[in-house]
Amino acid sequence: MLTVKTPEEVLRLVPEAFSTRTDLTETVPLNEAAGRLLSEDVCAAEYVPDFDRSTVDGYAVRASDTFGCSDAIPAILPLAGEVRMGEGADAALKPGTCVAVPTGGALPRGADSVIMLEYTEDYGDGTIGIFKPGAPGMHVIFRGDDVHPGKVILQKGRTLLPQDVGALAAVGCTAVPVARTLRVGVISTGDELVPPDVTPGPGQVRDVNAPMLTALLRNFGADCAEYGIVRDDAALLRETMERAARECDAVLVSGGSSVGVKDAVCGIIESMGEVLLHGIAIKPGKPTILGRAGNKPLVGLPGHPVAAYFVARLFVLPLLGHLMGRDMREYTVAARLSESVNANHGRAQITPCRLRHTAEGLLAEPIRSKSGLITQLAGADGFFIIPRDCEGLPAGAAIQVTLQ
Amino acid sequence: MLTVKTPEEVLRLVPEAFSTRTDLTETVPLNEAAGRLLSEDVCAAEYVPDFDRSTVDGYAVRASDTFGCSDAIPAILPLAGEVRMGEGADAALKPGTCVAVPTGGALPRGADSVIMLEYTEDYGDGTIGIFKPGAPGMHVIFRGDDVHPGKVILQKGRTLLPQDVGALAAVGCTAVPVARTLRVGVISTGDELVPPDVTPGPGQVRDVNAPMLTALLRNFGADCAEYGIVRDDAALLRETMERAARECDAVLVSGGSSVGVKDAVCGIIESMGEVLLHGIAIKPGKPTILGRAGNKPLVGLPGHPVAAYFVARLFVLPLLGHLMGRDMREYTVAARLSESVNANHGRAQITPCRLRHTAEGLLAEPIRSKSGLITQLAGADGFFIIPRDCEGLPAGAAIQVTLQ
Repeated sequence: MLTVKTPEEVLRLVPEAFSTRTDLTETVPLNEAAGRLLSEDVCAAEYVPDFDRSTVDGYAVRASDTFGCSDAIPAILPLAGEVRMGEGADAALKPGTCVAVPTGGALPRGADSVIMLEYTEDYGDGTIGIFKPGAPGMHVIFRGDDVHPGKVILQKGRTLLPQDVGALAAVGCTAVPVARTLRVGVISTGDELVPPDVTPGPGQVRDVNAPMLTALLRNFGADCAEYGIVRDDAALLRETMERAARECDAVLVSGGSSVGVKDAVCGIIESMGEVLLHGIAIKPGKPTILGRAGNKPLVGLPGHPVAAYFVARLFVLPLLGHLMGRDMREYTVAARLSESVNANHGRAQITPCRLRHTAEGLLAEPIRSKSGLITQLAGADGFFIIPRDCEGLPAGAAIQVTLQ
Repeated sequence: MLTVKTPEEVLRLVPEAFSTRTDLTETVPLNEAAGRLLSEDVCAAEYVPDFDRSTVDGYAVRASDTFGCSDAIPAILPLAGEVRMGEGADAALKPGTCVAVPTGGALPRGADSVIMLEYTEDYGDGTIGIFKPGAPGMHVIFRGDDVHPGKVILQKGRTLLPQDVGALAAVGCTAVPVARTLRVGVISTGDELVPPDVTPGPGQVRDVNAPMLTALLRNFGADCAEYGIVRDDAALLRETMERAARECDAVLVSGGSSVGVKDAVCGIIESMGEVLLHGIAIKPGKPTILGRAGNKPLVGLPGHPVAAYFVARLFVLPLLGHLMGRDMREYTVAARLSESVNANHGRAQITPCRLRHTAEGLLAEPIRSKSGLITQLAGADGFFIIPRDCEGLPAGAAIQVTLQ
């Protein structure tokens, strides 16, 4: 008996059936933080910068000392000194004087503006001519403009991008709290499967799912434990799934395309915990089983590589993201369909496509092929989904493509 | 003297000034191929599958033996055997008989169609009732349907995605020809800089650019050699840049924000080879120097982290991609602007933004801040560019956002 759920129902079920784990935090050095999931808000403990700072090469002044000056009537201010990069400005700026300051240099106390070099002239007699008045705050980054103590720099749940690493560096966060990577056990089943480095004999094919799923999971930031190819033998499969569940945070079994093994996977999951759904109303991808042992997901993926790929991409990754507390926002790109696509399955239909930049914008070329052919996915740039209640889309239709 | 170029001119200059390297090929095992750049077309040497294969559980037949059958008048065919998963179908299918075959199993010679189990009945007397006629090719993947010898599976220049790894597995390509990773030397200059793990003294700030650029480059698939922070000393900087150029495929120097060092970087690049441009008409990012020593790029990036980030993101990555022969297509997402943004600089203006899903689509919230503040980038989801000839955009304007 299949308890088939729609894709939306599956995604709603995930946060109901699984809880975000609170035991996953670890600390990594800054140079390993990119791509990791921030597990705590990062707050600044200091001011950045910790001093008033010039954004140009020029002369630090009190703006009021330059009011009214012009090319014709420059303000003439005695040069009271020079600030050097990487040093503090020791003395306060005396009213009616100026101090040379480089880009990034510290402003002396009392200065509130910097006049760019271009609008000044060094008369060589110890005075500087200023041809353009400064305004308070002009060309100055004030202490704490970027960061002040207590400011939240980055929020937990964010996957750290390179520029986030820059912000962490700026505030001196060199031990970064991140979510520990989830360990996912990957099992392939099927008497017909041989490893990719073996030449298939009669009736045999190479195992595509284990290398593909492993690459997908690692790309997502998970660790993979590979349990190899298990024969269509319920006892052996049970033993392997139980071992994987002990050793991992989640278990994916793909294959079991023969009737007996399909039933076996379902029965094993049931005995290990609970089956949450049996079947998702998408094409490809229907014969999917989702279960749990405690808070550990146990997933039976279809044997067809394309179906296995999309179920993993659309449901397993969000599930792992939920376990980790990850912000899983996804974006799509707008494209026009190059040709019509039929759909009339009572199931949401996923179609891989190639994308081509044209003068009229992005063109999506659907990749047609028989079900289950991996080359339908190879070379695809993305995919689009036709909802279950839609009978198809005409050529030229505006679609939203999820990038792969 | 700045020779300022527009962003478009810079991107046109890259393929003119640098040639794609042909010496970069290496071979990696399949499980390390994801994310790498394919350096040769991959052609299949075999048929996949290498046998006619059923896509359902059912009975392999000659379709013509079932023509005209129905629920009322089933075709009754003697069961001539059973194909087991992972084994060849030894005997040919005799006309007027059928053979049980599982999903993924091999079809016996002579069979051209599979009748799904649902439309059959096993009468228990050695015969099978068929209630729905088959059509030739129905529920069959024929030998080579997925792949035939000589078919190009993946084209060189592609960055391998998880599903591409699946396709490589399918054809037994377990030693994958990829472009060797480029080694990029990263140097920070500035008397004001201290490493991120040091608390800045008066007039000092932490070095943001080295960790940020290193993360960006590694995320792109490059190796980084870090040469640390070099004081504002032309001789020391020259020595470090020359060493980096010997040891790396490209060199990035960021900083040199004081006038003397700016000039020093330019002079050093000139003496090592040639300065190609000095200044890009973007904001932030103008004070950029691009040069070369032979075919090795030498880049002087701005000291401001936000400017350094965008110059690296928009120009250095495409340059490295060109050296590697990488397909560098980029996609943008459509969004509406949440508030007006001014721009009137005679330079293309880059504005980081946050993205929010709303009922009316994606909303882009520009992140405003003073120039050069790294927290403008922290937490950003993407950025958009206002062309140099545009004075700004009103709230609600349709924009294209590049994701970060």
